[in-house]
Amino acid sequence: MTARWERVTVVGPGLIGGSVARALRRRGLARRVVVVGRSEGGLAPVRAGGGADETTTDLAAGVRGAALVVLCAPLGSLPGLVRAAWPHLARGAVLTDAGSVKREVVAAAAACPARDGAAFVGGHPMAGSERSGFGASDPDLFEGRLALLTPTAETPERAVAEVTSLWEGLGSQVRCLSVEAHDRGVAQISHLPHLAAFALVAAADGEALALASRGFTDTTRIAASPEALWADIFRGNRVALLEALGRYEAVLARWRERFERGEWSALEAELARAREIREKLG
Amino acid sequence: MTARWERVTVVGPGLIGGSVARALRRRGLARRVVVVGRSEGGLAPVRAGGGADETTTDLAAGVRGAALVVLCAPLGSLPGLVRAAWPHLARGAVLTDAGSVKREVVAAAAACPARDGAAFVGGHPMAGSERSGFGASDPDLFEGRLALLTPTAETPERAVAEVTSLWEGLGSQVRCLSVEAHDRGVAQISHLPHLAAFALVAAADGEALALASRGFTDTTRIAASPEALWADIFRGNRVALLEALGRYEAVLARWRERFERGEWSALEAELARAREIREKLG
Repeated sequence: MTARWERVTVVGPGLIGGSVARALRRRGLARRVVVVGRSEGGLAPVRAGGGADETTTDLAAGVRGAALVVLCAPLGSLPGLVRAAWPHLARGAVLTDAGSVKREVVAAAAACPARDGAAFVGGHPMAGSERSGFGASDPDLFEGRLALLTPTAETPERAVAEVTSLWEGLGSQVRCLSVEAHDRGVAQISHLPHLAAFALVAAADGEALALASRGFTDTTRIAASPEALWADIFRGNRVALLEALGRYEAVLARWRERFERGEWSALEAELARAREIREKLG
Repeated sequence: MTARWERVTVVGPGLIGGSVARALRRRGLARRVVVVGRSEGGLAPVRAGGGADETTTDLAAGVRGAALVVLCAPLGSLPGLVRAAWPHLARGAVLTDAGSVKREVVAAAAACPARDGAAFVGGHPMAGSERSGFGASDPDLFEGRLALLTPTAETPERAVAEVTSLWEGLGSQVRCLSVEAHDRGVAQISHLPHLAAFALVAAADGEALALASRGFTDTTRIAASPEALWADIFRGNRVALLEALGRYEAVLARWRERFERGEWSALEAELARAREIREKLG
């Protein structure tokens, strides 16, 4: 098998970065996979787990010479990492990220000075786990999933093709959409459901929790997700999330009224519409 | 193996009734399992699927001579079925149900005239599926699940022991609690999560739904449940559900304020508490 890339650098050795690095290696997509971490302590399990050909804590050294750099660090750190990596990108290199919200990171990249054909494409693999860290990484994590890309009018086609080829190579289906559509969409189908799951747990008393069965544990599985990561995402996407939360609160308020007025058949009709929509998602 | 009961009658050939009947037969717990349905059409698959030794559309005939009668019909029909079955119960027979809300059915049973040692115990197996009907039934449905019983001060110990032995025989763990604790508890850990799941789907627009990934499909799996069944449950438990909904809305409103005020570390602390609670549920 010919490697698609000579050198790919993954910044961030956590669940997503670890899974990307391991998948690249297992599939022979890159001749060398470099993983950049903030500390030696975070990189040791990557080396022990065969997750990289090289590891380094030096971002500039890690980025240098790579044809493709994938930022898989926590959302809040992405704009800073884009600015820090940018001056060290090789000629024609493509920088992308795996952050759950695209507005700030895309804006940070747009503000970087043009140089040597380097380009940024915002990315978001729709895969994850309530677990975190390299120990939870899985080279098949992206298999059969959606990867969303948010190129702008300024993004070169070549760079979009490169990042498309990364996620397709890892088994995902790629879709391009605008930054706004992305952030509004994920607010509704990812961020709000997480907030709702955390809130269902927070609103239940101990006596009720002792009765929890599969309906509850499934619905709230994602409330076992790391709170720091999610507080970061909620903050990063607060505008779209507040809008989605407003729509959700309005549905709940309307249904509360239906309960209070005894409008059961109207309620049932609304539940039926939701059930039909949900069934289509499989 | 000696059968525990000579004759057990299951009223309602749906998901729960079908699973009870099939489990009783497979485990040899009853010498004869009788299934009562409203129509011949509903009973044909039960016979074809080996779900009963006898089937009938005549409630009185089905109940007569049974030591144990399990009502597995839709929630709204349970009080009427208790009243209809009561005069036909054998001497010392135990009547129980599998309804998701206990207040009305327990009250209906309490209003029946004492006769021949017949007794009622409210029951609720915490098992189910978003699918319904005999075709979705599963003799292992109750394996490893919780079964809740709501005896009152008037319920004879013997009757509680009989129904405990039913659900334990089907693989469940039995817990007794008051009608009020039951209805408040399930409002929080079952009914509200269903309402929340339906509402998450109802609040999402089509563009967002096209991005749905595992977080969304897991959280809203229960929104694929039959709406008639759930409208019935929401109506039956409206008082406790409105209280649970109020608590939930208050959490969401508080978190909305935290977003608007930028109180991220306070929000993160609340998410952490929910995550810890959720993790303990496994």
